[in-house]
Amino acid sequence: MRKIDVSYDDGILNKDDEYIVGVNDGTTFNNVKYKGVRLFNGKKMLMFQTKANRQLTINPSFHTFTLEKTDSKSKARAGLLETAHGEIETPIFMPVGTAGTVKAVHQHEIKDDIKAQIILGNTYHLYLRPGLEVIENAGGLHKFMNWGGPILTDSGGFQVYSLGDSRKIKEEGVTFRSHIDGSKHLFSPEYAIDIQRTIGADVIMAFDECTPYPCDYSYAKRSMHMTHRWLKRCCDRFDSTEGKYGYDQTFFPIVQGSTYKDLREESAEMIASFEREGNAIGGLSVGEPAEEMYATTDLVCNILPKDKPRYLMGVGTPVNIIENIALGVDMFDCVMPTRNARNGMLFTSEGFINIRNEKWKNDFSDLDSNGTSYVDSQYSKAYLRHL
Amino acid sequence: MRKIDVSYDDGILNKDDEYIVGVNDGTTFNNVKYKGVRLFNGKKMLMFQTKANRQLTINPSFHTFTLEKTDSKSKARAGLLETAHGEIETPIFMPVGTAGTVKAVHQHEIKDDIKAQIILGNTYHLYLRPGLEVIENAGGLHKFMNWGGPILTDSGGFQVYSLGDSRKIKEEGVTFRSHIDGSKHLFSPEYAIDIQRTIGADVIMAFDECTPYPCDYSYAKRSMHMTHRWLKRCCDRFDSTEGKYGYDQTFFPIVQGSTYKDLREESAEMIASFEREGNAIGGLSVGEPAEEMYATTDLVCNILPKDKPRYLMGVGTPVNIIENIALGVDMFDCVMPTRNARNGMLFTSEGFINIRNEKWKNDFSDLDSNGTSYVDSQYSKAYLRHL
Repeated sequence: MRKIDVSYDDGILNKDDEYIVGVNDGTTFNNVKYKGVRLFNGKKMLMFQTKANRQLTINPSFHTFTLEKTDSKSKARAGLLETAHGEIETPIFMPVGTAGTVKAVHQHEIKDDIKAQIILGNTYHLYLRPGLEVIENAGGLHKFMNWGGPILTDSGGFQVYSLGDSRKIKEEGVTFRSHIDGSKHLFSPEYAIDIQRTIGADVIMAFDECTPYPCDYSYAKRSMHMTHRWLKRCCDRFDSTEGKYGYDQTFFPIVQGSTYKDLREESAEMIASFEREGNAIGGLSVGEPAEEMYATTDLVCNILPKDKPRYLMGVGTPVNIIENIALGVDMFDCVMPTRNARNGMLFTSEGFINIRNEKWKNDFSDLDSNGTSYVDSQYSKAYLRHL
Repeated sequence: MRKIDVSYDDGILNKDDEYIVGVNDGTTFNNVKYKGVRLFNGKKMLMFQTKANRQLTINPSFHTFTLEKTDSKSKARAGLLETAHGEIETPIFMPVGTAGTVKAVHQHEIKDDIKAQIILGNTYHLYLRPGLEVIENAGGLHKFMNWGGPILTDSGGFQVYSLGDSRKIKEEGVTFRSHIDGSKHLFSPEYAIDIQRTIGADVIMAFDECTPYPCDYSYAKRSMHMTHRWLKRCCDRFDSTEGKYGYDQTFFPIVQGSTYKDLREESAEMIASFEREGNAIGGLSVGEPAEEMYATTDLVCNILPKDKPRYLMGVGTPVNIIENIALGVDMFDCVMPTRNARNGMLFTSEGFINIRNEKWKNDFSDLDSNGTSYVDSQYSKAYLRHL
């Protein structure tokens, strides 16, 4: 008999086998027989039967994280994050599908060739185009883009700050002008949650302020405290609303505090105290030296709970990813692979390649002879250079 | 026992079965046993054994065309064209892979999803980029672009004429300046064949002059006669050279004569007299009314031999294609599907769609519910509009 965290899928539970079932409030039920899944109002519920023939109907958490293995020589770990749209093996890199598409790649290629287990959507871009009405009419982003796997959305904060002069940050939220038509909009913590509810991402991010690098101490401190207040508002909104499309979503708060040790400690402790199903580290990969990034990640990972996934936002290069995995990070995203590829830079098992370089003109070897994707072995360097 | 045209592939012949083998010079051999394929100097030869134990070694024609069915109500026909890189069922539309790629589509998608049986390459574009040295080093265009199916190349003539002021037509050939770097080049009939030998297309086109529309009679007549003289030079070059990569190529001459009945008749008769393995009709789809196109096609198809494939160059819209099939055309190419798609126009089973139109904003139906390609059913109109 094994102790299980209740799962959303009866695939891993055997009918009539006995389990110890632990539920979120700490209660455990011993020797209960699994009886299968039943639908209540369109929602999957797990059915168990106790020794005393009492029926247990359990609303499974759709976002359980299981820590499967921890490295003995580093803080690296392997885990499994379960969502309504499938399991994610961590550590994981999440390709960025900015406005509802990983550019120039078919959904079946992301799934079958790249084997991405989760992709990202950008709230700011999706909000402006195609807009919430279209996404809601489509039945959410998964259906709109025909992607059946998990999706994570950022809160729109990062893009909004990047707008520079066209945005204003206040306690209420951020006012900004669209980069497309100059129209005026307000993102508040509450509205950022509402938008992400409408997009229907499996993992929703808190609305925070991402401070630039460098950032003076007093600004970083003030900003971090506002991020914490915004987090409370995000949580209140998230907890008082439901997913719009019949499946559960989960919510990750974000640690800020620039590169200041005491601020990062304070923020990590505050974020951990919210006890959400996962936690993120923001405000890095914004220009700081790699050592500062690693020091901050290390510090924050030591504070964030071990049994929750840790997501380092916007990182990064292959080396950055490996180093941060060793510090205990589980999830990553970055536009680098897709953006750099569009500019001719490839990440191969043998290092960076600038495919526009003259030296590849007559090199008919595979793009990456150790690669696992279709393109790695089907096209030569000379051919890609030509294209 | 069935009579066979010698095939390049032993897959359709059963070892030790008896066949009647017909070869190109008209000789037939009865009751010969097929003994398999043998390589002679890298070339596949079919082995047969006669009743009298005589060995027949046959160099199979790689470009046989079999007329399989003729429509009783029109001049439409169904045929099979065999090449060293596979069979082509006609009538066929050939997607245009300008400079060694059908833009934005993977080779496996062209093969497995679009199910293209042959694609086009443009001699002019390939000659300028990546250039002959790279293509030859790669072992030909098939290997360079990783496309295992048949390829047809135009002769470069059409693109060169499109250059307008940057080209000069003389008896020797055409001098032109590259649209990329302004460098000066000469395409002669002989060189156009040499280039296509190096590209390694299965079907090589004659170097002709494509007259514009409208075109005055005397110019059309003079140009046509030059095209005929060039054709002789093309044939001489083609027949005195061999494929560079161990497989046979074939050569199609091109009928010209603008929209003048007598010129088209004269040209069609001249082209037919060359008795090549296929024939093409050029100088159409250059702005003339559809009726003029159909009248010319009809006239020319009545003269060109029935037992050879007929290729109408640069045509066209779905309606143009259907109408010309009814007049006896077997092969088509046009940039329209790919170029128009890049500009938001789709050909669907229910007609043209401008996917940028506001009316599709909330239309989550399939792109084409009768379509056969992955994209037809996997993406909605609203999603494609958004992209």
